[in-house]
Amino acid sequence: MAVKSVTCVAPVNIAVIKYWGKTDEKLIIPLNDSLSGTLHTDHMCAKTTVAISSKFSKDRMWLNGTEESLDNPRLLACISEVKDRARSAGKLTEEELQWNVHICSENNFPTAAGLASSAAGYACLVYALAMLYKIDGDVSVIARRGSGSACRSIYGGFVQWIAGTNPNGTDSIAQQIVPASHWPEMRVLILVVSDSRKKTSSTSGMQRSCENSELLKHRVAKCVPERMSEITKAILKKDFETFAKITMQDSNQFHAVCLDTYPPCVYMNDVSHGIANLIHTINKFAGRTVAAYTYDAGPNACLYLLEKDVPGVLAAVNHVFHTDTKKEEYYRGLSVDLVDVPEQLGGTKNLGQWPENNALRYIIHTKIGEGPQIVSETLLNSEGLPNRLA
Amino acid sequence: MAVKSVTCVAPVNIAVIKYWGKTDEKLIIPLNDSLSGTLHTDHMCAKTTVAISSKFSKDRMWLNGTEESLDNPRLLACISEVKDRARSAGKLTEEELQWNVHICSENNFPTAAGLASSAAGYACLVYALAMLYKIDGDVSVIARRGSGSACRSIYGGFVQWIAGTNPNGTDSIAQQIVPASHWPEMRVLILVVSDSRKKTSSTSGMQRSCENSELLKHRVAKCVPERMSEITKAILKKDFETFAKITMQDSNQFHAVCLDTYPPCVYMNDVSHGIANLIHTINKFAGRTVAAYTYDAGPNACLYLLEKDVPGVLAAVNHVFHTDTKKEEYYRGLSVDLVDVPEQLGGTKNLGQWPENNALRYIIHTKIGEGPQIVSETLLNSEGLPNRLA
Repeated sequence: MAVKSVTCVAPVNIAVIKYWGKTDEKLIIPLNDSLSGTLHTDHMCAKTTVAISSKFSKDRMWLNGTEESLDNPRLLACISEVKDRARSAGKLTEEELQWNVHICSENNFPTAAGLASSAAGYACLVYALAMLYKIDGDVSVIARRGSGSACRSIYGGFVQWIAGTNPNGTDSIAQQIVPASHWPEMRVLILVVSDSRKKTSSTSGMQRSCENSELLKHRVAKCVPERMSEITKAILKKDFETFAKITMQDSNQFHAVCLDTYPPCVYMNDVSHGIANLIHTINKFAGRTVAAYTYDAGPNACLYLLEKDVPGVLAAVNHVFHTDTKKEEYYRGLSVDLVDVPEQLGGTKNLGQWPENNALRYIIHTKIGEGPQIVSETLLNSEGLPNRLA
Repeated sequence: MAVKSVTCVAPVNIAVIKYWGKTDEKLIIPLNDSLSGTLHTDHMCAKTTVAISSKFSKDRMWLNGTEESLDNPRLLACISEVKDRARSAGKLTEEELQWNVHICSENNFPTAAGLASSAAGYACLVYALAMLYKIDGDVSVIARRGSGSACRSIYGGFVQWIAGTNPNGTDSIAQQIVPASHWPEMRVLILVVSDSRKKTSSTSGMQRSCENSELLKHRVAKCVPERMSEITKAILKKDFETFAKITMQDSNQFHAVCLDTYPPCVYMNDVSHGIANLIHTINKFAGRTVAAYTYDAGPNACLYLLEKDVPGVLAAVNHVFHTDTKKEEYYRGLSVDLVDVPEQLGGTKNLGQWPENNALRYIIHTKIGEGPQIVSETLLNSEGLPNRLA
């Protein structure tokens, strides 16, 4: 049976200069440039198999083991852009281009935790389709059509997404600033925060901010351009102090703009703010910037820090936020040394303790990694159907 | 024994266009104009007796029953400005102007609840001193030297504080926009929120915002002037919809600027945001603006609403935030009718319930009131010593 298939993994990325607001809702052209670190796929990734065959009677898709409709304009835009590019490239026959497609995608991390799974998912889909249809050139521009920030997951290391000036979006693309190997000491701790509130989706939140946040205009016109330039220099120089300060300031400003929106979008909760406060406290005790926090459109904290500081920062977090969760369940990703809170970070006397236990669900320890990769293990069998269903 | 004394009460005010940031720390000249409603002194006020006598051996002060030092530059600025003005007015002899002063002040509401007691306190002190020393003309300019927003408590109704342009602050004064009688239907509910976090003082918070919030600059230059003009018109026209929307937007923007400050100042907590969310929800169900929230530098919510909507809004608050506190203790101020949640505000099915009980400590129901008043009951006895000590 002639089934052509490709399987890829693609990473999550965590922005340090945030994307918030579009100039074109359909084409997903952002108001401002943004910049992110790409996380290692070992600990968080989307995995997608795409397959085409003359025997497939229709397009089908399975997400995390459940069949879903493809009737989604963003998904259809990605597929049709890949096919258009494939047609020009001419490496597949017109007949093959007419075959229906099967898509099977899974995340290796819980989607419910609010850890921007759509960026990894769309990057993975577009990268896999690009491999399957043998297209050349930048595909971040296509991934962008699925989910804006997905374009940054097309590259490893630190990546910028240039907003572009072309109204058709052709120059709104991601570019690698440095590969993962440039700053091998960089580590990331994701503190997954317990939360039960219903949240405003980022799509509708950013739409509302564009409509009525006065402060967003100033952020876009004045703050972001300066920060993009400064943080890029800091990354090139491996200047952690500057990198960290801009990261924290930009996260705060993004949430400030959300709050300035009417009605306000509130993504951080008391625990999120408690973590930010802890980071400022330990940085103050240390007399240097030990870690930087950043928050996306949800309560989870993402900490950027250097390898040498992981045990100390984790000790401080563990001291303040007590958990009853089993160690094997609580610490995920890279292995960690569990130590006492270093005196230089305030020791146990100065940090206080969060009033409730289990404010954090678990912690992922990871690092900066590469962009999407082809892998051998497939999610679809020889019939083009999922190996695994939910 | 020749003791001359005056006793006054002065109100709390709740800003709808917020004051945040100074151009002169010592003179307390604000970055921007602000506007507030003056609350009725029956439910919240400072009460102050000031006395002078040839027999007082030194200046002394008692706050809420405890003797405090007068060695506070803001307090001394108020006293010396009153005395300078008194000297020009010439209604007291130079000898009387040399007499030492006794000050005794109390609040009729808990100071620990974070209900800006300093504004009422300084307005009361300055107004009482002005009466005692028989000075004429605007005294808001003097109250401003004690605590910026105290100048607005010098007048009743709705009051604006004009930032002024004079570097010596002589034109940075409060002015009444309308008296309390202009909008007699206006009511205020203060929801006192349980909170244990240590907070950044507003003095140091606004200093930090001036130093490093980019968004504050834009707020001051662009947003506040427009809002001052619009909300003044809305007050004159008794246009509650517009008044309420600007009030909520300005509160949100103020807290956005606090969050954009580095390190961020966070005053609202999850309960504060929960209340704001409830207000948006009931306004949406009602298809009109039933109530507006505003938050100062703390977690307590202040709701502006019209008399007819008090029972419904209170019912919604009570449905969402369950209390175990006794009714007599929980409801303070004006009497309230306790009703079921009206269907027009979403009914009991749609509002949800806050996960923890006792998120609110108590509720004060009050209305717009007059400025400072002389009262007959004194806090100092014929010796010039407090009738009551803590």
